[in-house]
Amino acid sequence: MTAPPRRFAVLASGNGTNVQALLDAQARGALAPAEIVVVGSNNPGAYALERARAAGVPAIAVDHKAYATRGDFEDALVAALAPHAPDAIVLAGFMRVLTTRFLDAFPLRVINTHPALLPAFPGAHAIEEALAAGVKVTGATVHFVDAGVDAGPIIAQRAVPVFAADAADDVRARIQAEEHALLPAIVRAFAEGRISCEGRRVTIAPRAADADQLL
Amino acid sequence: MTAPPRRFAVLASGNGTNVQALLDAQARGALAPAEIVVVGSNNPGAYALERARAAGVPAIAVDHKAYATRGDFEDALVAALAPHAPDAIVLAGFMRVLTTRFLDAFPLRVINTHPALLPAFPGAHAIEEALAAGVKVTGATVHFVDAGVDAGPIIAQRAVPVFAADAADDVRARIQAEEHALLPAIVRAFAEGRISCEGRRVTIAPRAADADQLL
Repeated sequence: MTAPPRRFAVLASGNGTNVQALLDAQARGALAPAEIVVVGSNNPGAYALERARAAGVPAIAVDHKAYATRGDFEDALVAALAPHAPDAIVLAGFMRVLTTRFLDAFPLRVINTHPALLPAFPGAHAIEEALAAGVKVTGATVHFVDAGVDAGPIIAQRAVPVFAADAADDVRARIQAEEHALLPAIVRAFAEGRISCEGRRVTIAPRAADADQLL
Repeated sequence: MTAPPRRFAVLASGNGTNVQALLDAQARGALAPAEIVVVGSNNPGAYALERARAAGVPAIAVDHKAYATRGDFEDALVAALAPHAPDAIVLAGFMRVLTTRFLDAFPLRVINTHPALLPAFPGAHAIEEALAAGVKVTGATVHFVDAGVDAGPIIAQRAVPVFAADAADDVRARIQAEEHALLPAIVRAFAEGRISCEGRRVTIAPRAADADQLL
């Protein structure tokens, strides 16, 4: 049993609403003992980086288009994060698949949020595919990242309804509202050493002082 | 637009708790204008048949083991139901896959309840597979039956949580509680002509006198 992670890097590719939820939680003291020490992106224009700077958190960009191979990009990302000494990674709308080249630097320390109830609808178009399938319930999944696409052990899930008149943006907004509550709670629980993983089953232990609440 | 179905046959293979939920709804007047006109099983010993007899509803058994082929069994099942003149079928824990041989007798008039949030975990071991996958949310799906396994258009879904200490029976009980509420409401809505299906998207129209409720 190694010590739980405390220093989190958050990676995002776009607007970064989940990054904002984490920064807001940190600002109001709801993330401790976890700390967001750096926000990174593969997209130098990602608004997520602006959100970090506005919160006084270091922001770095490693443009994947500047690297010939996925491996070179991942090496550069690990190197750019290194000065901030993160011991865990949160993927919060990070749209690059990461290989073991990156993941091996943070074993069982990379978590992702995905806009579907995995194992349903993995991949980059989860909401559109859920609508096309005609589901009436979808949701958000926070999970450990392994070398599969959206395939690692599930930490937590929240369901949301899909209504007949919904467009993708309606469903996305409903899922994001769940993610914005769930992701900071998971990061805190991880830093508190309350998350354990055996095979595919993840357990979140209750807080000692708050044993009726899982998060 | 054909007239909506009114006369429902319910098929089950075992204990029949969903059959009981439908019979109970009928007894308290909550199923009309739908009527359960017959309960059938492929298993002559199914307790679902006892439940039907106790409620004064005809019960029939067509033992699949008595037929050399799946097609022969399905023909016999259609023939045994025919005297009761059902115009729709509810599969409520019916453990035989039905082919177009049966389904073509009731086009878009066969509905099934499945103990998972389809398209996740189709097949006969949905709850066990969901637990093995480590999901934190699963649920119940009521859907139209087509020639695929648990693959037809989804009518309604309800989510239930999965807790760390859960065994399969714990999850099953939670799912059945949702099914017992959902399935009678769907049958009634179907008989009221409020369910429509375009491609894979199913819409349940609100009741005229109760427009804030979908069911």
